[in-house]
Amino acid sequence: MAMKSAASSAIRSLLSSSSSTFSRNLHAPAERKKIVGVFYKGGEYAKLNPNFVGCVEGALGIREWLESLGHQYIVTDDKEGSNSELDKHLHDAHIIISTPFHPAYVTAERIKKAKNLELLLTAGIGSDHVDLKAAAAAGLTVAEVTGSNVVSVAEDELLRILVLVRNFLPGYHQAVNGEWNVAGIAHRAYDLEGKTIGTVGAGRIGKLLLQRLKPFNCNLLYYDRLRMNPELEKEIGAKFEEELDAMLPKCDVIVINMPLTEQTRGLFDKNRIAKCKKGVVIVNNARGAIMDTQAIADACTSGHVAGYGGDVWPVQPAPKDHPWRFMPNHAMTPHISGTTIDAQLRYAAGVKDMLDRHFRGEDFPEQNYIVKEGQLASQYR
Amino acid sequence: MAMKSAASSAIRSLLSSSSSTFSRNLHAPAERKKIVGVFYKGGEYAKLNPNFVGCVEGALGIREWLESLGHQYIVTDDKEGSNSELDKHLHDAHIIISTPFHPAYVTAERIKKAKNLELLLTAGIGSDHVDLKAAAAAGLTVAEVTGSNVVSVAEDELLRILVLVRNFLPGYHQAVNGEWNVAGIAHRAYDLEGKTIGTVGAGRIGKLLLQRLKPFNCNLLYYDRLRMNPELEKEIGAKFEEELDAMLPKCDVIVINMPLTEQTRGLFDKNRIAKCKKGVVIVNNARGAIMDTQAIADACTSGHVAGYGGDVWPVQPAPKDHPWRFMPNHAMTPHISGTTIDAQLRYAAGVKDMLDRHFRGEDFPEQNYIVKEGQLASQYR
Repeated sequence: MAMKSAASSAIRSLLSSSSSTFSRNLHAPAERKKIVGVFYKGGEYAKLNPNFVGCVEGALGIREWLESLGHQYIVTDDKEGSNSELDKHLHDAHIIISTPFHPAYVTAERIKKAKNLELLLTAGIGSDHVDLKAAAAAGLTVAEVTGSNVVSVAEDELLRILVLVRNFLPGYHQAVNGEWNVAGIAHRAYDLEGKTIGTVGAGRIGKLLLQRLKPFNCNLLYYDRLRMNPELEKEIGAKFEEELDAMLPKCDVIVINMPLTEQTRGLFDKNRIAKCKKGVVIVNNARGAIMDTQAIADACTSGHVAGYGGDVWPVQPAPKDHPWRFMPNHAMTPHISGTTIDAQLRYAAGVKDMLDRHFRGEDFPEQNYIVKEGQLASQYR
Repeated sequence: MAMKSAASSAIRSLLSSSSSTFSRNLHAPAERKKIVGVFYKGGEYAKLNPNFVGCVEGALGIREWLESLGHQYIVTDDKEGSNSELDKHLHDAHIIISTPFHPAYVTAERIKKAKNLELLLTAGIGSDHVDLKAAAAAGLTVAEVTGSNVVSVAEDELLRILVLVRNFLPGYHQAVNGEWNVAGIAHRAYDLEGKTIGTVGAGRIGKLLLQRLKPFNCNLLYYDRLRMNPELEKEIGAKFEEELDAMLPKCDVIVINMPLTEQTRGLFDKNRIAKCKKGVVIVNNARGAIMDTQAIADACTSGHVAGYGGDVWPVQPAPKDHPWRFMPNHAMTPHISGTTIDAQLRYAAGVKDMLDRHFRGEDFPEQNYIVKEGQLASQYR
């Protein structure tokens, strides 16, 4: 059924796709592409929600469309090692789609094997699972669905701030365990109101977080490469900090909102954590490797960090024995904040749009490019 | 040491209290009062935070002041049954201070025993632990620290909304248990953005919640006895609903923000819950008895209610076998939202202020009265 001629599939696409126009006829795919999608497995959960498109079974909801255009679409969660399903299809894959939640690590070695590769798409935001320099050198295009899940991540950051500052989890454990000890919670539960919150990075997600924090009557700070224009700064109500190390000691809560790059890898090491206020809460939904793993675990154990929360880990899936699973006062989860049902629908639509443009030979929205014509996007340079 | 004459203690108070003025000399206590405070026990946590004034050991930070004025101050957490420490002191107590977190249930029977009782103070908000009609009939004054912890409760409501809508807890459990199954979380995790949120009651707490929700780009509704003035309504960005039962089916999230009264007891019974949208999230930090306990547990089990979160229970401490501890998709804790360290400092100051006024024969701030001169405050009528 999937083996259709390019012409007939183009017609079927014209009939079935609500977004198609007459111009599509002029851009019938010149060749059959092999597309490999690497997503997390839905398993028993796959059928529970018709909008659950982000899993292997959901396959971004684009299988019918791709196959109607005559393309081959392989979808798997098996991504580690040279015997993986991903590696099996590398040699003739044209396009790899992956997500930050269950990332296909596209190393220089894999790029070398993938002779036909032309495009790497991230369903979501953050393409650090790709060796971007190797991709650029090989002339590949790397793009993501910029903006697709920024709201989702910002909401989750505020959730984790509240969980930690308000000391929610010990109370939840008491409820579940048949206990009642208000003191055990209250002695270290605080209002967010009046506290100083600093975001390290104030790009799209950082700004959305600051906007959501505004009615909480906090003291808001931000550190970034670029200062916002004065109007936006006033609207958001956050004060610019020129020096990261000058901002950190002021903050009751620190939130990480920067990509993982060569500059940010291990940025929060033992020395930098020591510069933070004793009792600081840190939330990191950006990338796990921005932290020194053991330094965070040690600081939670000593109490210097009063709480650490996030959904990102240096390697994903996180190993069973990762220290962040066991340290005190954490609010960790698997990588989840950017893959709500709402986010999945948005990044699936964004991937479909980019594939459509790619097949037609059209450019993507400029902000989606991470590697284009051998050049890395500015935040990754 | 506590046995001082009224005159000398008034002088000591003048010397020691930063808020005292020369007028205090004119109002030296006419008689030695016996004040009973019923708070939750701090235990091993009492000494961990110098601002932890809300526990038995912290005693609202007013022991020295009260004793310097010559009053007797008994503080206990032992409040149940006729052999309790509370009952032992009922016969000659003038003032009882309690909190909603560990409430001294001041029943008609206890009021009858307490021949000297003149004043019941709630350190916090919500005086439903007092039989208000019996208190009014006995000529007692009942007052609370209106406004003292409204921000604390509103913040916690937003926390619980996020915990449930974003499906945080299954992810946290995975992190702790060495698991990694993004699908198990993502298939029922949603953004808050774009959802319809209705508050049942839009008094101080309800308004603060709506203000904090505004940047989330939700559809905000409120049901209340009184409509806000058009200006405030526009600023808050919420639409007034005249009929509770007309609002409920529209809501993805319902938050309870009304006191427990004869009218609201059991308001959310089986029939009313059935009127809510399938998959609704309910957050209730108001009072547990506004819900029909079993109806909520059944609706969580059936999935009609996708999540129920709150810190209030029909009786507190909640029994070990309370069904809300075991139902699926809950975000329950002991009664905690209004007793953050920040809230404790505010309601302790408010109690001290009212005691000071009482000793001087002055009125309280009008909004603090729940029962005054035989009349119940309007929300309890």
